[in-house]
Amino acid sequence: MKKILNDPKNFVPEMLDGLLKAHADQLSYAGGDVHCIVRADAPVQGKVALATGGGSGHLPVFLGYVGKGMLDGCAVGDVFQSPSAEQMLEVTRRIHGGKGVVYIYGNYGGDVMNFDMAAEMASMEDIEVRTVLVKDDVVSNKDPEKRRGVAGMVFAFKCAGAKADQGGSLDEVEAIARRALANIRTMGMALTPCIVPQVGKPTFTIGEDEMEMGMGIHGEPGISRESLKPANEIAERMLKTIREDLPTASGDRVAVMVNGLGATPPEELYIVYRRVHDLLTADGIKIHRAYVGEFATSMEMAGCSLTLFKLDDELAALLDYPARTPFFVQV
Amino acid sequence: MKKILNDPKNFVPEMLDGLLKAHADQLSYAGGDVHCIVRADAPVQGKVALATGGGSGHLPVFLGYVGKGMLDGCAVGDVFQSPSAEQMLEVTRRIHGGKGVVYIYGNYGGDVMNFDMAAEMASMEDIEVRTVLVKDDVVSNKDPEKRRGVAGMVFAFKCAGAKADQGGSLDEVEAIARRALANIRTMGMALTPCIVPQVGKPTFTIGEDEMEMGMGIHGEPGISRESLKPANEIAERMLKTIREDLPTASGDRVAVMVNGLGATPPEELYIVYRRVHDLLTADGIKIHRAYVGEFATSMEMAGCSLTLFKLDDELAALLDYPARTPFFVQV
Repeated sequence: MKKILNDPKNFVPEMLDGLLKAHADQLSYAGGDVHCIVRADAPVQGKVALATGGGSGHLPVFLGYVGKGMLDGCAVGDVFQSPSAEQMLEVTRRIHGGKGVVYIYGNYGGDVMNFDMAAEMASMEDIEVRTVLVKDDVVSNKDPEKRRGVAGMVFAFKCAGAKADQGGSLDEVEAIARRALANIRTMGMALTPCIVPQVGKPTFTIGEDEMEMGMGIHGEPGISRESLKPANEIAERMLKTIREDLPTASGDRVAVMVNGLGATPPEELYIVYRRVHDLLTADGIKIHRAYVGEFATSMEMAGCSLTLFKLDDELAALLDYPARTPFFVQV
Repeated sequence: MKKILNDPKNFVPEMLDGLLKAHADQLSYAGGDVHCIVRADAPVQGKVALATGGGSGHLPVFLGYVGKGMLDGCAVGDVFQSPSAEQMLEVTRRIHGGKGVVYIYGNYGGDVMNFDMAAEMASMEDIEVRTVLVKDDVVSNKDPEKRRGVAGMVFAFKCAGAKADQGGSLDEVEAIARRALANIRTMGMALTPCIVPQVGKPTFTIGEDEMEMGMGIHGEPGISRESLKPANEIAERMLKTIREDLPTASGDRVAVMVNGLGATPPEELYIVYRRVHDLLTADGIKIHRAYVGEFATSMEMAGCSLTLFKLDDELAALLDYPARTPFFVQV
C-alpha cells in the first residue's frame, strides 16, 4: 500500500484535522466532532441552509464545497462509508438559520437511510428539512430513480447555494436543486483502482491495457471492460451516452465538467475536454462554462468523468454567481 | 502506458488546445503558436510584464498561473523539454506593455540557455528583460546557486505579480521576486515515477515499499532511497531540512505549501500538512496562509513537496493580494 499516511485507522480524523487547520478561516465543526464540518460563520441567520454528506475519499467532495455561495455544512464518514444520522443531525442543528435546510447528496443506500433519519430527528426539533438526491451517473442504472450520484452534484451545490445566498425561500432553493439535477448527467471511466487505507488492497483488479467504462467512484462495476482506447474515442462515447439521456440540440447552452478521479493528470483531462468542446461546438451547442480538474475523486484512482449540465437563463446566472470555499473559488 | 491520450506525439499541442478552449476568456497565444501562452488582454499597457517558461507535464506550472495578478505569459515546451528562445521571444513581444519584462523560471540548463537568448533578442527590440532564477529545491545541491527550481516558484509568481499589478517599476518587481525567493525553500519526495508520453516508459524504477526523499520533479535522483515511512516522519524530515537552510524562530510568519506531485490524493496531503502545522505552531511560528493541493506536478507521479516561505509585512501583503488565473483564484 503506497500511501503517505500514519496509522490507517486515523486516516480520516487526521485528514480532517489537517483540513480544518489549513482552512480555519472558512471551516469549523459542530458537536465537538471533526466529522461534522460547517462554515466558520454558521449559522447564517435568515438564509436557507444547505447540507450534504457521505464517505471520505472523494475530495473536494464533500467538505471542500462548504463555504459562501455553496454549502453550509457536511457530515463526513470514514472512507467510502456513510456518516451517522447523529452526525448529520449535528450539522443540521448548527447550520440552521431559521429558514430550513436542504440536503443534497448522492443516492447511496447508507446515506439515504442515515440522512432520512437525521431529517426526521431534525423535524422533531422544528427544523424543516427537504431532501434532494443526486442521481446523475447515467449508466449506473436504466431506471433514472435508481442511479448513483457522482460529480454532477457539484453543479447542484453551486446553483442551490447561489439561490440560498440570494435569499431564496426553502421552496425555491429546493426547486432549483431539482431543476439543476434534472438537467445534469455524468458518465465516468477508470483505468486503475484505489486502495481504501483500512482495507489495504485495491478495490478491484484491471489489466495493464484495460479500462472500464461506466465505473462508479467506489469501484462499482461499469458497463464494459475493454482495451484502453484513445482519448478522443473515450470522450466521444461518454458524450454520446450522456446526450442520449439528456437531449441537446443546436442553440442549447451547457456547462461541461471533465473531472479527474485522482491520479489522472490535468494534461490528460484537457485532451478529453478538447474533444468534447469540438463535438459540442460542431453541433451548435454553446459552452457557457468549462470546469476541468479534480472535483469528485476516488483517492488515487486513475480515470475521469464527463458531466453535462444543460442551462436555462436562471441556472446559468446561478452558476455564474460568486462562491468561495476551500476548493472552489469563483469571482 | 496507461494514459488517456491520442497519439503521444500530439500530447502537448492537444493539451494546450484543450486548455485554451476551456479558458478562452482568460488565455490566448502569441505568434500563431499554442506554445506561446499569454493573457487574453495582453499587453497590459503601463504595467511591468511577467513571463515564465519551461517544459510541459507540470500543470498548473507554468501556464496555469497566467492571469490577472500573476503572470502575463509563458512559453511551454514539450514534456520536460525547454521551449525555444524564439517561443519565449514571441511571448515577450506580446506581453510587453512598455515597462519591461521580468522572467521568473526554474534553474534548468536548457531553459537558462534559451531564455537568456530570448532576453538578448528582446533587448535588440528595445524590450528590457530582467531574469530571476528559481532555485528553491533545497536538497538538489549544496551550493544554493546550483539548485533546481520547483513548487516555490508559485509564491514568487504571486508576489511579483501582485507588485506589478500595483504599478511597481521594473526594479521593484525584480527586487520583490528576488526577496521572495531568498525566503522560499522546498523539499520533495516521490513514491512512484511518471511516464513521458513520447518515451512510453517510467522515468525511474522504485520498489513497492520504497520512497525517495529529495527527488526532483523530472525524476532527478534525490538524497536517499529508503523504505516508506509514516506521513508524520516524512513531514518532520522535510520541514527540518528546510528549516536548517532557512532559519525560522518563534514570532516568524510563514506561508506553507504542501504540493501533490500528481497521483497523491489531497487527503494524504492534508495529513502531511497537519504535522507541519503542528510542528511550526509548537515552535511559535505563525502560519499566515496554507496552500494544500496540486501546484507543480509531474503528471502521474505520486509524492509531495513542502515549501516554506518566510514573510515580512510587504511579502505577506503581496501574497494576500487578489489574483485570478485558470488554476489560482484568490479573493
